[in-house]
Amino acid sequence: MAISNQTPFKTLTLPSPKTLFNTTNSPIPNFLSIKCNTSLSCKPLIAEPEPIFTSVKTFAPATFANIGPGFDFLGCAIDGVGDYVTLSVDPSVQPGHISISSINGAKGLSKDPLWNCAGIAAISTMKMLGIRSIGLSLTLDKGLPLGSGLGSSAASAAAAAVAVNEIFGGRLSVSDLVLAGLDSEAKVSGYHADNVAPAIMGGFVLIRSYDPLELLQLKFPFEKDLFFVLVNPEFEAPTKKMRAALAKEISMKDHIWNSSQAGALVAAVLQGDLSLFGKAMSSDKIVEPKRAPLIPGMEGVKKAALEAGAFGCTISGAGPTVVAVIDDEEKGKEIGSTMVEAFLREGKLKASATVRSLDRVGARLVSSKPR
Amino acid sequence: MAISNQTPFKTLTLPSPKTLFNTTNSPIPNFLSIKCNTSLSCKPLIAEPEPIFTSVKTFAPATFANIGPGFDFLGCAIDGVGDYVTLSVDPSVQPGHISISSINGAKGLSKDPLWNCAGIAAISTMKMLGIRSIGLSLTLDKGLPLGSGLGSSAASAAAAAVAVNEIFGGRLSVSDLVLAGLDSEAKVSGYHADNVAPAIMGGFVLIRSYDPLELLQLKFPFEKDLFFVLVNPEFEAPTKKMRAALAKEISMKDHIWNSSQAGALVAAVLQGDLSLFGKAMSSDKIVEPKRAPLIPGMEGVKKAALEAGAFGCTISGAGPTVVAVIDDEEKGKEIGSTMVEAFLREGKLKASATVRSLDRVGARLVSSKPR
Repeated sequence: MAISNQTPFKTLTLPSPKTLFNTTNSPIPNFLSIKCNTSLSCKPLIAEPEPIFTSVKTFAPATFANIGPGFDFLGCAIDGVGDYVTLSVDPSVQPGHISISSINGAKGLSKDPLWNCAGIAAISTMKMLGIRSIGLSLTLDKGLPLGSGLGSSAASAAAAAVAVNEIFGGRLSVSDLVLAGLDSEAKVSGYHADNVAPAIMGGFVLIRSYDPLELLQLKFPFEKDLFFVLVNPEFEAPTKKMRAALAKEISMKDHIWNSSQAGALVAAVLQGDLSLFGKAMSSDKIVEPKRAPLIPGMEGVKKAALEAGAFGCTISGAGPTVVAVIDDEEKGKEIGSTMVEAFLREGKLKASATVRSLDRVGARLVSSKPR
Repeated sequence: MAISNQTPFKTLTLPSPKTLFNTTNSPIPNFLSIKCNTSLSCKPLIAEPEPIFTSVKTFAPATFANIGPGFDFLGCAIDGVGDYVTLSVDPSVQPGHISISSINGAKGLSKDPLWNCAGIAAISTMKMLGIRSIGLSLTLDKGLPLGSGLGSSAASAAAAAVAVNEIFGGRLSVSDLVLAGLDSEAKVSGYHADNVAPAIMGGFVLIRSYDPLELLQLKFPFEKDLFFVLVNPEFEAPTKKMRAALAKEISMKDHIWNSSQAGALVAAVLQGDLSLFGKAMSSDKIVEPKRAPLIPGMEGVKKAALEAGAFGCTISGAGPTVVAVIDDEEKGKEIGSTMVEAFLREGKLKASATVRSLDRVGARLVSSKPR
């Protein structure tokens, strides 16, 4: 299932997790009537869905979160790089449970589903569907480096949630899948949807609120091109320092500045104005000035990107990947080379660059084997 | 001259006031070449323009600034209420100067042009045009109550700047006029363009930066209706307290919240989504909670407006006018009545309500007498 969104502008308002199963006026998927208490151990009234495939393979893309002044509430999906999940009906797995059979492309990840991003999201999705009689086996193929700032955990979670949904007939809404992904993100990095929402939905997503969860899909015009130059240095961004670098309080002046940039960013996305997008994304006065010094050479890399003609440049997520934007792929490759040189020169870090376009579709079914 | 903007999205980048007359790479209007030092007493190289009218009459609308989370960087123009300026060539006035002959509709305003909003803006505009040989006489007809939160000073400034520009042939750009208006606003209430920019440009305007001044015009779709219910209580908002009520520092959490609302507001304007617009405008967690208690009954008025069906409600500018939004004029009148009752009940204040639509045009020439 390719989740493509035809309408130019889509608002999804989701019940808060604690009210999802409330017996009163909770919005519920139209196929499923649930009467239960507010815990997640509720029993659906209708029959448990049967799997319609013996196995599925899904993909979910990398994501670029924060986008400068959009810190914690804006993110977008990046085409061509991400994680794959293969999910199979497995009689050897305890019914109602999931087992992670293998993880490829990354070391050090737990195979315990309760401690694995894909596993957590898969379990949440199974609970939403009320799966009690089928056991599943999952393989995770990581295409994204861990801790790169490109939404690696979110991609795993998104691919897994979509896989579970698809194997049982695709009944859940996009909003349900985001909630399942959020369960995963909450365990690994905090209750933030700015990676997992665009990973599932594609395109640009603004999170207007978390309780209830309200997601706005912002459509970048189809006729315009947008390329991301992703430059990933051989460096482990110190996550604790990255979080600690965030100010607890900020000046009114900086708030007004960053808010106006965020407004400009939204306008730029909806109008396909890359010049404005670039300027706004590069204008974060709150988070980037604190985090950039923790990535050796980052400021020089940004300067080099802008001088080479990029419309804008900033840190992707919490880094260390640095991302620049341009409207031409070849130009993007030149900018990437310049940025790689700058990382070495300014930060003494080796880096690799890749040029990707916007992923407007998000997490999707790649292949399936029918029963 | 009705300043109507045909393009869906328009970015104006203006030189900062101190660089406007710089000899190096300053952007300058294409009709005028200026070589001078950085003070405003520079001499234009081309001939001083001749007046093409003996008199002109201009109008500039009321404006609704802040719009909740758009504090200090978002504003829009309101149709059907504002200030008129009548400007005439007057041989009895010293050449290069302006005299205010009368002010109607308001008491207590200075007739000294240096201390009057219309006068200050007119002087700035005359300086931009290099007017040295003609004296002008100005009449100001106020249609907006002072200190109401509806951009009264900005309307006077806008109407005056446009009047001077028009009487001399309309050579200046919208951006120049905003700068002239800013000179006025800076003297009376601070260097803010969120009233004077929409007063001149019409529609919604986002100020992305002040130095250089960059204004984004956000087009609300023509096919959609948008009505403002303006409720003005008989109350003088204590300006010093209103400014003092602003926090100097805010929490990161509140910053993220308000920024995401501002982003949602921009998206709502560009998509004509009044439901989202209303929710976002009503969701300010930084300024409104501090200022509302200073306007007796305001919180009850907002609650009444929302219960009566308004999409959203907040303080206009620094108040005390409270504004609600709806998509139907008749419905707006009902909401207005409810809000007036609430002001009396909750705040012991009499109030009057009016329903207006969005002014998409901004300051304009109303009539003229040719030479």
